[in-house]
Amino acid sequence: MIVVMRVGATDQQINAVMERIRAAGLKEHLSHGVERTIIGVLGQIYPELKDTLEVLPGVDEVIRVSKPYKLSSREFHPEDTRVKVGGVTIGGEDVVVIAGPCAVESEKQLFETAHAVRAAGATVLRGGAFKPSTSPYSFRGLGERGLELLAQMKAETGLPVITEVMTVADVDLVARYADILQIGARNMQNFFLLEEAGKAGKPVMLKRGLSATIEEWLLAAEYILAQGNKELILCERGIRTFESYTRNTMDISAIPVIEKVSHLPIIADPSHGTGKWHLVTPMALAAVAAGADGIMVEVHPNPDSALKDGAQSLNFDNFRKLMKLLAPVAAAVGRRLVSP
Amino acid sequence: MIVVMRVGATDQQINAVMERIRAAGLKEHLSHGVERTIIGVLGQIYPELKDTLEVLPGVDEVIRVSKPYKLSSREFHPEDTRVKVGGVTIGGEDVVVIAGPCAVESEKQLFETAHAVRAAGATVLRGGAFKPSTSPYSFRGLGERGLELLAQMKAETGLPVITEVMTVADVDLVARYADILQIGARNMQNFFLLEEAGKAGKPVMLKRGLSATIEEWLLAAEYILAQGNKELILCERGIRTFESYTRNTMDISAIPVIEKVSHLPIIADPSHGTGKWHLVTPMALAAVAAGADGIMVEVHPNPDSALKDGAQSLNFDNFRKLMKLLAPVAAAVGRRLVSP
Amino acid sequence: MIVVMRVGATDQQINAVMERIRAAGLKEHLSHGVERTIIGVLGQIYPELKDTLEVLPGVDEVIRVSKPYKLSSREFHPEDTRVKVGGVTIGGEDVVVIAGPCAVESEKQLFETAHAVRAAGATVLRGGAFKPSTSPYSFRGLGERGLELLAQMKAETGLPVITEVMTVADVDLVARYADILQIGARNMQNFFLLEEAGKAGKPVMLKRGLSATIEEWLLAAEYILAQGNKELILCERGIRTFESYTRNTMDISAIPVIEKVSHLPIIADPSHGTGKWHLVTPMALAAVAAGADGIMVEVHPNPDSALKDGAQSLNFDNFRKLMKLLAPVAAAVGRRLVSP
Amino acid sequence: MIVVMRVGATDQQINAVMERIRAAGLKEHLSHGVERTIIGVLGQIYPELKDTLEVLPGVDEVIRVSKPYKLSSREFHPEDTRVKVGGVTIGGEDVVVIAGPCAVESEKQLFETAHAVRAAGATVLRGGAFKPSTSPYSFRGLGERGLELLAQMKAETGLPVITEVMTVADVDLVARYADILQIGARNMQNFFLLEEAGKAGKPVMLKRGLSATIEEWLLAAEYILAQGNKELILCERGIRTFESYTRNTMDISAIPVIEKVSHLPIIADPSHGTGKWHLVTPMALAAVAAGADGIMVEVHPNPDSALKDGAQSLNFDNFRKLMKLLAPVAAAVGRRLVSP
Repeated sequence: MIVVMRVGATDQQINAVMERIRAAGLKEHLSHGVERTIIGVLGQIYPELKDTLEVLPGVDEVIRVSKPYKLSSREFHPEDTRVKVGGVTIGGEDVVVIAGPCAVESEKQLFETAHAVRAAGATVLRGGAFKPSTSPYSFRGLGERGLELLAQMKAETGLPVITEVMTVADVDLVARYADILQIGARNMQNFFLLEEAGKAGKPVMLKRGLSATIEEWLLAAEYILAQGNKELILCERGIRTFESYTRNTMDISAIPVIEKVSHLPIIADPSHGTGKWHLVTPMALAAVAAGADGIMVEVHPNPDSALKDGAQSLNFDNFRKLMKLLAPVAAAVGRRLVSP
Repeated sequence: MIVVMRVGATDQQINAVMERIRAAGLKEHLSHGVERTIIGVLGQIYPELKDTLEVLPGVDEVIRVSKPYKLSSREFHPEDTRVKVGGVTIGGEDVVVIAGPCAVESEKQLFETAHAVRAAGATVLRGGAFKPSTSPYSFRGLGERGLELLAQMKAETGLPVITEVMTVADVDLVARYADILQIGARNMQNFFLLEEAGKAGKPVMLKRGLSATIEEWLLAAEYILAQGNKELILCERGIRTFESYTRNTMDISAIPVIEKVSHLPIIADPSHGTGKWHLVTPMALAAVAAGADGIMVEVHPNPDSALKDGAQSLNFDNFRKLMKLLAPVAAAVGRRLVSP
Repeated sequence: MIVVMRVGATDQQINAVMERIRAAGLKEHLSHGVERTIIGVLGQIYPELKDTLEVLPGVDEVIRVSKPYKLSSREFHPEDTRVKVGGVTIGGEDVVVIAGPCAVESEKQLFETAHAVRAAGATVLRGGAFKPSTSPYSFRGLGERGLELLAQMKAETGLPVITEVMTVADVDLVARYADILQIGARNMQNFFLLEEAGKAGKPVMLKRGLSATIEEWLLAAEYILAQGNKELILCERGIRTFESYTRNTMDISAIPVIEKVSHLPIIADPSHGTGKWHLVTPMALAAVAAGADGIMVEVHPNPDSALKDGAQSLNFDNFRKLMKLLAPVAAAVGRRLVSP
Repeated sequence: MIVVMRVGATDQQINAVMERIRAAGLKEHLSHGVERTIIGVLGQIYPELKDTLEVLPGVDEVIRVSKPYKLSSREFHPEDTRVKVGGVTIGGEDVVVIAGPCAVESEKQLFETAHAVRAAGATVLRGGAFKPSTSPYSFRGLGERGLELLAQMKAETGLPVITEVMTVADVDLVARYADILQIGARNMQNFFLLEEAGKAGKPVMLKRGLSATIEEWLLAAEYILAQGNKELILCERGIRTFESYTRNTMDISAIPVIEKVSHLPIIADPSHGTGKWHLVTPMALAAVAAGADGIMVEVHPNPDSALKDGAQSLNFDNFRKLMKLLAPVAAAVGRRLVSP
């Protein structure tokens, strides 16, 4: 941490800062520049110290130098994390395709979709049993019945299953049925849920919050990793910007950034990332070209009549077309589209 | 809801849209413009219909006309909501000042602060017992011990108490001690928590999410109101933008907007809204000048040594200065700074 | 255009709106919904009418239905625009690579770079002679001397040249040397410059403004097209968001969106889009996978010592690596990396 | 400037950075922390050095410590700048009200407005002769005829006049008629225009760009100040965010921030800042409560029929109401609403 003093800060002010640093059990390192004095802080720094020092008289700003995330950082853990689910490994050479309906609506809908996406090459089945919704007047999922249907489809198709858990009280229930627990974007900073999910003994996929910086996302990951759960997958699903043509702005650059700063695998969700089905295929291809370890795509037998997010769902035919394009793009960047 | 067809949409496509509308039990209303055909949808529309119609062939876009929020809307409830807490009314002519430490740290800290803010004119005491934190390595509050201290200070000072509840499991506990339950910005779309708080039988203050539009905020309010709890207060606390000098960008214009579109009272939180103590006073004055029903301000006996958010806390002296400026500003816009 | 009246709007208010519409030489179309009355406006609407109607008593909102851009719209011009420059066609099946230094610094620097990028497969040479700079204390380009060097390299290598024009007074000068005039992001709404560039008789590349919506970008394009210049290319180069790890957030989804709503070709600039050289290759690949008609990349013989934007420039070796990956990605999505 | 090395950076990498610093004629200052080595850079640093150092091997990040703006900085010029125009001083104790139509439309319109705003207490007359417009199909102002009308009204009412200059070629023309040259938000980084305006011998008002940080705004100011023109006024007019209820989000906190970091006066424009007339009054009051040196407000005899921005213009009656509220708010914060 570095404390930048104002131009003209007095010796008394500088001394006060140094005393405060020592009082926190740390060491200081003084440097007089042409315009300003700068004080380095050495030792194990707790995050709040920044705030504390920033309000001292004569201080211009306090700059953090260490990264606040550790367990998720590649600097401290250079090796890639690989998460194994069923026969699939997320985070290695393979590109994994997670597909299925936004919400589980019925046995028939899930059955048809699971078989269709498996036949087209998907290796993990997605489907929401508990659905967050901006409005209280919208469809909110089948609940445990949805989880049972997912488990049934898993038994039939052999595909491992990912589904969202929305509240602490449901973690055990969802963990009984799911192979991967999904934490949704709105819950990225629901810290109790993160910790509970971290204890559930199942891999977790953590979606990026709508307005979360990459650093905040990795700090949220830290809550899960700190529970001893190493099987964590990140998922980029679009951030909020001023552009309104797309529902969100998918931050494709987060993919190579995460690869650089973290050892965790990263999946891209172009369905939520764009909100429009006709953008899903180009953005899925873009994500894999940029280095994503997989994609998560919403597929529905009949998007026109979907109870949830039909506008962003591919029908079976469009999903098959996507899969045909995805394989050569993965190959072009030295990856392999894994088969079910 | 209005369906805008593309230039050159065929009769067949137009008919398909009309059939889909009728299949949903609604009526259509056709209008042929110079360039395009437009189809109005009449009847009680469910929100997902927009998505459903938008993906039909020949459709350019679907525009919502009704507001998706009802219970919080001034159109349907023209009268101002007034929330009574202790002897204080939030939402009427009075301007209410809520003050106290970010986090309850100790009996001494809370005792000193409670008496100081009361003496300076605050009418509600704030203090966090459960603290959300971006990093798992930060201070997270005293928990129930913090609640007990708040209740003790309430008994001593007569000030009603507001404190944050962060998870469904804690709602009952917090409701036993608090006069107002606060839902934090990160939990604005934690729908289970909203509903549970709505059932707790206590007034609720709902903070605006970091990246929530005003419409989404009112939809979140809808979750609480739908539980039959009418005692709801909104709180603007800054939104996330590209500007990094301030922690957030406080959206002062949200205050008159809420006053126009909703009957709910609105409080401004310049401490979180700016993240810097030296901006708290000008922004508190701005909020009241713009029509806020009150302000919520962090005050600490010694911000330099606060365990949480010291950089944005006023010391007692600065809080007294703020109160002295606030009274004439409130009077200038026809409001009254209420006394404890 | 559609006028949505408030719940409870009076007949008098409705009549006043209808009279205002007729006074503008247009026709109205009345529709009474369950909650509200809606008035369609038929005829050739001028953009300001929205503002005019919106302030009338009883009006809730006015919704535009027609797109405000016409000349750039695919609805009105379904055929792809193809821009021919030298032997290169931008906007067809080919993927075009534009490469060169951010700023022309010296004959030696440009000579080396031009030959290196040509050898690696670039088909257009870029280089700034006039450089915008956030700070007045930064390097601002060689001016006409830079243009001369570009023309010289064009003669030597056969590569057509693109360079930025920053002010109306320089349009003729730049057009004498350049094959494509580039309008920078900061000038996207410099309307005088757009019109002057539109008259220069040369193809124009219009970069997206830092905070421009896709619609505003197409409206800016309209200024150029309205001068009769059909040879227009768009360039996505990142938008401003809250994320600070990257200089900008590159909006890859803008590529398929533009392809859908406009007939104009679109190029991606991952150098400015990310601000970091190690993100340039993955984002270039992503852009082409998403359907970009080409990429524009900054290359420098020695990025460490570049006078401008060294941090985002590839060295020759990294540029060659990018080109080797780009060809199979282009092929995977049915495109062809064109050779010089 | 501070260079933060990566965890595990080699001595060779550290030496290479130090050599690069010395090669630039600067001195280095080494500090070994627990995790990382940090290198301070001492001396007169040019802005590009950051980019140069950031790409060296082993470097994690480079942090700027000095502010990049100097002439506009309060650190270097503690005294408030006061700009005198006619009998009015902007930047002292007085609060100045600038009012008039968005665009000059006709002699009658300007005559009526000028007299009405003067009678209500405005001290500077605004009116656009050259109007920027997102669409080429919109009204773009009367040009020189508009300037003549403004000069005529100045002669009649005694009010000094502010009007926008949009292009370098018009600076001399506009400077002949105007008392203050306005640089619009879209031109905040039109560097040629800034420099030309800086040379015109007239006070300049620089509006904040739609997506400009406060730092970029002050850097743009630097272009004007560097021409020797000290008579510069800043104007906050809203920034672009995700919120769409308002046209822009008015950043009221920029007012106290500018007061802290700069000596330049700051005006608030709630008309453009909100885009809706019914928000103009509360936001004007908020701006003055937060410490603005004045406000700029659009007023029109008949906003319903305005050629430009009618939706955000006050009619005479509403302007008078604003003025009646403004005086006591200014007084409440120790300022004085100056009379014409």
